[in-house]
Amino acid sequence: MFEFKILAKDGKARVGKLKTPHGEIDTPVFMPVGTQGTVKAMTHSLLEDTGAQIMLGNTYHLYLRPGTNIIQKAGGLHSFIGWNKPILTDSGGYQVFSLAQGRYGDRKSKVKVKEEGVEFRDHLAGDIHLFTPERVIEIQEIFGSDIIMPLDECVEYPIDKEYAKSALERTIRWLERSLKVKTNKSQALFPIVQGAFFEDLRVESANKTVEFDAHGYAIGGLSVGEPKEIMYRMTQVVTEILPSDKPRYLMGIGKPEDIIEAVYRGVDMFDCVIPTRTARTGTLYTSEGTLNIRQEKFKDDFSPIDPNCGCYTCKNFSRAYLRHLFVAEEISSYILNTIHNLSFYLSLMERIRTSILEGKFEQFRQFTLEKLLKRV
Amino acid sequence: MFEFKILAKDGKARVGKLKTPHGEIDTPVFMPVGTQGTVKAMTHSLLEDTGAQIMLGNTYHLYLRPGTNIIQKAGGLHSFIGWNKPILTDSGGYQVFSLAQGRYGDRKSKVKVKEEGVEFRDHLAGDIHLFTPERVIEIQEIFGSDIIMPLDECVEYPIDKEYAKSALERTIRWLERSLKVKTNKSQALFPIVQGAFFEDLRVESANKTVEFDAHGYAIGGLSVGEPKEIMYRMTQVVTEILPSDKPRYLMGIGKPEDIIEAVYRGVDMFDCVIPTRTARTGTLYTSEGTLNIRQEKFKDDFSPIDPNCGCYTCKNFSRAYLRHLFVAEEISSYILNTIHNLSFYLSLMERIRTSILEGKFEQFRQFTLEKLLKRV
Repeated sequence: MFEFKILAKDGKARVGKLKTPHGEIDTPVFMPVGTQGTVKAMTHSLLEDTGAQIMLGNTYHLYLRPGTNIIQKAGGLHSFIGWNKPILTDSGGYQVFSLAQGRYGDRKSKVKVKEEGVEFRDHLAGDIHLFTPERVIEIQEIFGSDIIMPLDECVEYPIDKEYAKSALERTIRWLERSLKVKTNKSQALFPIVQGAFFEDLRVESANKTVEFDAHGYAIGGLSVGEPKEIMYRMTQVVTEILPSDKPRYLMGIGKPEDIIEAVYRGVDMFDCVIPTRTARTGTLYTSEGTLNIRQEKFKDDFSPIDPNCGCYTCKNFSRAYLRHLFVAEEISSYILNTIHNLSFYLSLMERIRTSILEGKFEQFRQFTLEKLLKRV
Repeated sequence: MFEFKILAKDGKARVGKLKTPHGEIDTPVFMPVGTQGTVKAMTHSLLEDTGAQIMLGNTYHLYLRPGTNIIQKAGGLHSFIGWNKPILTDSGGYQVFSLAQGRYGDRKSKVKVKEEGVEFRDHLAGDIHLFTPERVIEIQEIFGSDIIMPLDECVEYPIDKEYAKSALERTIRWLERSLKVKTNKSQALFPIVQGAFFEDLRVESANKTVEFDAHGYAIGGLSVGEPKEIMYRMTQVVTEILPSDKPRYLMGIGKPEDIIEAVYRGVDMFDCVIPTRTARTGTLYTSEGTLNIRQEKFKDDFSPIDPNCGCYTCKNFSRAYLRHLFVAEEISSYILNTIHNLSFYLSLMERIRTSILEGKFEQFRQFTLEKLLKRV
């Protein structure tokens, strides 16, 4: 049901193919985020046109709305949302620690981490819920996602080492409980490495995590405010320990430059709201750097966002028109911007794969990183 | 450049083909409204997939934003918005009398109708502008729309007869001035019949209007709050006078039942924001009546909006999923709902044309009107 083949390596960077029950995925892969069962401002068909091979769904949101019972009645998440390609769902842990906490006050009072699980008030109705490792697996088994994630404890940056250690140990105990209740063999569970921003804790967490046999492993708890060097360093420390024949997923990351740096350190899978979220604020990626389409200077610029881009938006519309749509607050602005940014990300992944296959990844990395940091 | 062929008649209903510089249009036609150079929640490609053959643009909005000079620099409206099919633009008159007036106080103080033209404050910056018949033609010649409309004076319902008469006479004088300055022969100007809700004024306006040779004629000033019987009656009075070999455009109308009743009275062209606007509030058309997708009862209804509809939304998604997207305020809800409603309208037009070609329009009309008024 699951199989991961590495087709080429260039340094630590790898090109692979991950087989799942709903289709194959080329890695390194970027997984667009479809929080509530839809990628924002996209239809599934528009999403597929950008080159997306897998969609990520958020267990926290889908559990709250439409609710697990509706998805169960529909016969699972694929059937409910009408998407026949692979789906990865997260554990809801990250959202509990960010959304629930963010809206209803400080963490101590509203999000209670107990050995049993994590208690929280949701950000919609404000009701109290309990996510346990067992419940989170049960929910995702109802969803029928191809790849599921166990409940883990995410900590913020900065964090004291003692708390970080207890969180990573709890994450391991929760992993053990998760695997005990998991029954569906057509779903792959990826254990999550924690350990915050401490090299020795990351090593400890990775070593303990790989003792559990799995179809793939995830690196969690990064890109929460720490400096980039720490993010890259922690990633590297962990990938050096993770088994080389299994896919590695760096959760919630990231900017194009972060993805390139993580591929360089041996990561295979990524997800992030950046391309879709920034699209809705007018920030667009190009091969010559980023731009914000709202800017006055684009009002009579009749060139495409990026002449090197082959997406629907760039092939048909000018910066001037896209600026007009953005300023006029047209929904089509969000659609066309999102098509472009996702196409940019997915084409970046394709160019990463090609450069690895051709043994030119290091060259590609240097060239692209320099461009990415410019402003158009 | 322009040619109108009537291919079949059934009673007063007609099937025709209207040739324009940017392509042919099958009539009776429904023209989706792309107020600011985009149909709301659509890309042009999604719009074409619904069967749209022509888009309507609003001169008032496009003149204000992005501004005529930007559209001129782009080489016209088709080029600016990247739409290569026919475009009809209105004169801006209706928006002046609704939007500008609605937002900045009562008509007497903010919208000044003079013989020269109409002075108004715009609804965005609140600046004062003057639309004259000449200026409105000049703007639309810059746009390069296939079909353009002359400035007319729209009156509200109810209105006293004396004012209605003076407005229709002014509309005729403005028409004369419009035709005098019109230079571009690759644009067709459709004179507009006014006369409010008085049969004799409609007759007077129609008779005076058809003295001006044109590629088509429009009926304006209806669907502004008057009872349906008056709308239908005024339409009939006018179509009986308009030349039978020219297309007839009933402006701003309407609901599916209004379109059927107007086709029955010999109208060929329609535009209305109803299918797109109601889609964004969750109201969806089906072959068994209308429904609002927000309703609780659809939460676990896994059937399509309309099993008889072949649109992307109905072929791929359930009412339960569409309800979820609507409640979750996802942009994809607006996209998918709009795809469906426009597909419903454009398929309705196709079924109207087929029934006329087959000589079964009266049967179709009776059967469809009954269904349209139901609630699902």
